[in-house]
Amino acid sequence: MFRKLMTFEEAQRAIASQFKPSALGEEEAVLLEAYNRVLAEDVVSTLDIPPFSRSTMDGYAVKAEDTFGADENQPATLKVCGVVNIGEQPHVNVAKGEAVEIVTGAPIPEGANAVVMVEDTEREDSELHVFTPITPNENVMKCGSDIKKGEAVLKKGQILGSSEIGVLAALGLTKVQVSRIPMIAVLSTGGEVTEPGKPLPPGKIYDINAYSISTAVTESGGKPVYFGVVPDDKEALSKALHLALVSADMVITSGGVSVGPRDYTPQIVDSLGKPGIVVYGIAVKPGKPTTIAFIGEKPVFSLPGHPTSALLIFYLLARPLIQQLAGRPVGAMKTIRAAAGSRMFSAKGRRTFVMVRLMFDKNCRLIADPVESGASGAITTLAKADGFVEIPENEQFVDSDQEVLVFLFRNVAGKV
Amino acid sequence: MFRKLMTFEEAQRAIASQFKPSALGEEEAVLLEAYNRVLAEDVVSTLDIPPFSRSTMDGYAVKAEDTFGADENQPATLKVCGVVNIGEQPHVNVAKGEAVEIVTGAPIPEGANAVVMVEDTEREDSELHVFTPITPNENVMKCGSDIKKGEAVLKKGQILGSSEIGVLAALGLTKVQVSRIPMIAVLSTGGEVTEPGKPLPPGKIYDINAYSISTAVTESGGKPVYFGVVPDDKEALSKALHLALVSADMVITSGGVSVGPRDYTPQIVDSLGKPGIVVYGIAVKPGKPTTIAFIGEKPVFSLPGHPTSALLIFYLLARPLIQQLAGRPVGAMKTIRAAAGSRMFSAKGRRTFVMVRLMFDKNCRLIADPVESGASGAITTLAKADGFVEIPENEQFVDSDQEVLVFLFRNVAGKV
Repeated sequence: MFRKLMTFEEAQRAIASQFKPSALGEEEAVLLEAYNRVLAEDVVSTLDIPPFSRSTMDGYAVKAEDTFGADENQPATLKVCGVVNIGEQPHVNVAKGEAVEIVTGAPIPEGANAVVMVEDTEREDSELHVFTPITPNENVMKCGSDIKKGEAVLKKGQILGSSEIGVLAALGLTKVQVSRIPMIAVLSTGGEVTEPGKPLPPGKIYDINAYSISTAVTESGGKPVYFGVVPDDKEALSKALHLALVSADMVITSGGVSVGPRDYTPQIVDSLGKPGIVVYGIAVKPGKPTTIAFIGEKPVFSLPGHPTSALLIFYLLARPLIQQLAGRPVGAMKTIRAAAGSRMFSAKGRRTFVMVRLMFDKNCRLIADPVESGASGAITTLAKADGFVEIPENEQFVDSDQEVLVFLFRNVAGKV
Repeated sequence: MFRKLMTFEEAQRAIASQFKPSALGEEEAVLLEAYNRVLAEDVVSTLDIPPFSRSTMDGYAVKAEDTFGADENQPATLKVCGVVNIGEQPHVNVAKGEAVEIVTGAPIPEGANAVVMVEDTEREDSELHVFTPITPNENVMKCGSDIKKGEAVLKKGQILGSSEIGVLAALGLTKVQVSRIPMIAVLSTGGEVTEPGKPLPPGKIYDINAYSISTAVTESGGKPVYFGVVPDDKEALSKALHLALVSADMVITSGGVSVGPRDYTPQIVDSLGKPGIVVYGIAVKPGKPTTIAFIGEKPVFSLPGHPTSALLIFYLLARPLIQQLAGRPVGAMKTIRAAAGSRMFSAKGRRTFVMVRLMFDKNCRLIADPVESGASGAITTLAKADGFVEIPENEQFVDSDQEVLVFLFRNVAGKV
C-alpha cells in the first residue's frame, strides 16, 4: 500500500483506467411511472400510426377524380351516401359520383382517396356541389405516415421524458424495459458518530454523511442503499463492507480515512479483493485523505469524514461514475461566472476548492463570497454554500474582485 | 360563454387574476426520502452543534495559562494525567500544570481551555514539554459554535437537497415536515382515443396525452392523478370532471375542445362552478382552442387533443401554476441561441410556436431545424423536437439563418 498523494488529474486517470461501466441489466417499468428512466432497448413500432388513413379536415370523403375540372361555375355534383364519425369504422363505400360526410380524425371510407373541405362545398339534402378540384390524398393523413409498423421509434439509452413516454403510449404500450438503477451502498464510520433518530451519547455527534451522500446519490441517478453508521471496530466494518459489495454496484464510505490509530477503513478496503486501492490520497483541499479502490469491477470510495469535504469529492469524482453506471450522459456541473467577494487562498501545492455563496452587491454584480467554514467540521458550511471556486495548484490565491468560475451544487434559479 | 380569442398575454393575465396559490398543507416525510421536497416549516435547532467543545487537532488539552511564556528554550512542562478518545465522554479533569492527550474531534475535558498541537510538544513518559504558548480556545471548536440551540437553520420553502438533508441529519432528525405535493388530475377525452394496453378497435388510435401530460406534471413537481380516457358522452365526462375536482388541486383535460358537435368539454367545465371559463381560445398556433377555467380556486385546463399542441400549452401556461402550487420557484424554460435552419412562417395574427430540432451544421454552427409535423396529429413531432421557436404576432416569418431563441423541452446536454 503506497501513500504518495496523486494530483487531481492522476486520480481521475487512475479511476478511468479501472472503471468499466457495463450494463447493469434491465427491468420492466410501468410506463406511467417511467419518467426519467433510461430506455434499455430500441423500441420498434408494432403498429402503423395512424393505423388507418384519417381525414385532417371536416368535409366530404370523395374520389378525387370526381372533382377534376370543378370550379365556381361548374361544380362537380355528387351524391352524399353516408357519414363517418370519429372513432368509428366506416360502414359505407364511396363509389364513383358519391361522397361521404366526414369529420377531422375519422377514417377515410373504402373507395374514397381525398377529402374536400366543407368550405368548398354546398349541400342540398343528399346533393353535394363541390366548387374546387382536389388531388388524390388531399386532406388525408395516410395510414403509417407518422410511424410505419417495424420502424425504430426510440433508441436504447434515451431518457424517458414526457415526449418519449407519449410516443410509447401511442404504440399502445403500458410497460417498458428500462435499465436497472445502480445501487450505491452508503455507510459512515467513525467512533464519534451516532445515527440520527437515536439518543445522542455524551462525546458523540450525529452522522451527516450517510444522509447527505445518499441524497446526492439519488440526485445523480443512483439508488442509495443506506447502511447508516457502522460500529467502530474492524470486524463490524469488514462485515459491512462485504455486505455492501454484494448488495450494491458501488460503495461509498466516509470517515475513518485519516491517520488516527482507528482509521482503518483503507486497510480493510484494500483486503477485500483485487485490484484494491488505486488512489491513496489526493493533493486537493479539502478531501486529501480520500482513497478509491476497485474490488473486481466495483468502485469503493472512502471519503473523508468532514461533511463538506465528503460531498465535494463525491460531486467531483463519484457522481460521474454513478451517471455512467446508470447509462446516463455524464453531466458537467453547472457553472456561473462571478466576482470573488474577497481574497481566497490556496493550500500550498494542492488544488484548492473554496466554498462560496452567491449574492449580488449593491451594483447588482454577482459575487462569489467565501463561506467561512470556521473550525473544520462546521456543518453549516454545507447549507450556506451554493458551490465552489477551484484554485489551481500553481496559484497562491484568487484576488478580491477577480472573475471566478463557480461550480454550482444546486439549482440557484431562485437566487440569481 | 364568450368566444373571443385572447392574445397570449391576455390569457396569462386572465390566469394571474384568478390564481391564488394557497398552501396545500403539509405532511411528514422520512428524511432519507425527502430529496427534492419543499420544507414546510422553519427548522430551529434543538441542539448545540457541536454539542460539546471539540479539539480540532491531535495534541494535548491544557490550560492555556500554563503555556504562557513558553518557547523553544524554556518549554512549559506539564504532567500528562490521561487521554480522551474520540466519541467518549472525558473522565479526567485538567488541573493547573496538567495535560490530557486528545485526538481531533474528541471532547475537551473539564478544566482545559485549549489544545496544543502534538508537533509543538515533546513527551517523556508522563512528562510533557510544550514549546509554544497558546491562547485560550486555540484549536478548540466551541460547543454551539456551528449551530446554537434555538437557532433557525433552514427556512420554510427551501428545497431539500443533499446539503439541507445533511443539516437536518446533524440535528438528529429522521423525519421532516414538507409541503404536500399538488395533485393534478389528468384526463383525455375524444371519441377516437383508446387507452394504451387495451385492444385497439377499428377507427381508433391510442391516447397519448394522458401519458405525456402526466409525465410533464411529475417533471413540474406535481403528482399526476391518472384518469385515462373518459368515455365520449356528456354524463361520463361530467362525472369524471366532478371526481377530478374533488380529488385534485388542478385538472387538465385534453381533446374535445374544437368546434365539432361532440366537443362539449368547455360547456361542461363552465357548468361546474364559478367563476368558470376565463380563457376561451388563445390566438396562438398551435393550441388555439385551449380553454382555461377556475372552479373555486382550482384551475381547469382544457388542452387541444393534438399531442404536441397539448404539451406545448402545458409548458407555457399550466406548468408555472403547478410550480407555484408546489411552493417552488417558477423556473423559466431553459433557452439556447441557434440559427434558423430554414424559413419558418407564422400563422396570421397568432403567436406561432415552431417545433425545432437542434443540430450542428458542417461549420459547427448550432441550427434550429423545424420539425416537419406533416399532417396535424403526427406524434413523432413530439419525440423529434428539442424545443420551439416563438414568432411574434406582428412578424410573418423568421428567415433562414436568422438567430433565434430556442425554448428547450428537455435537457439537451447530451446533444449540443
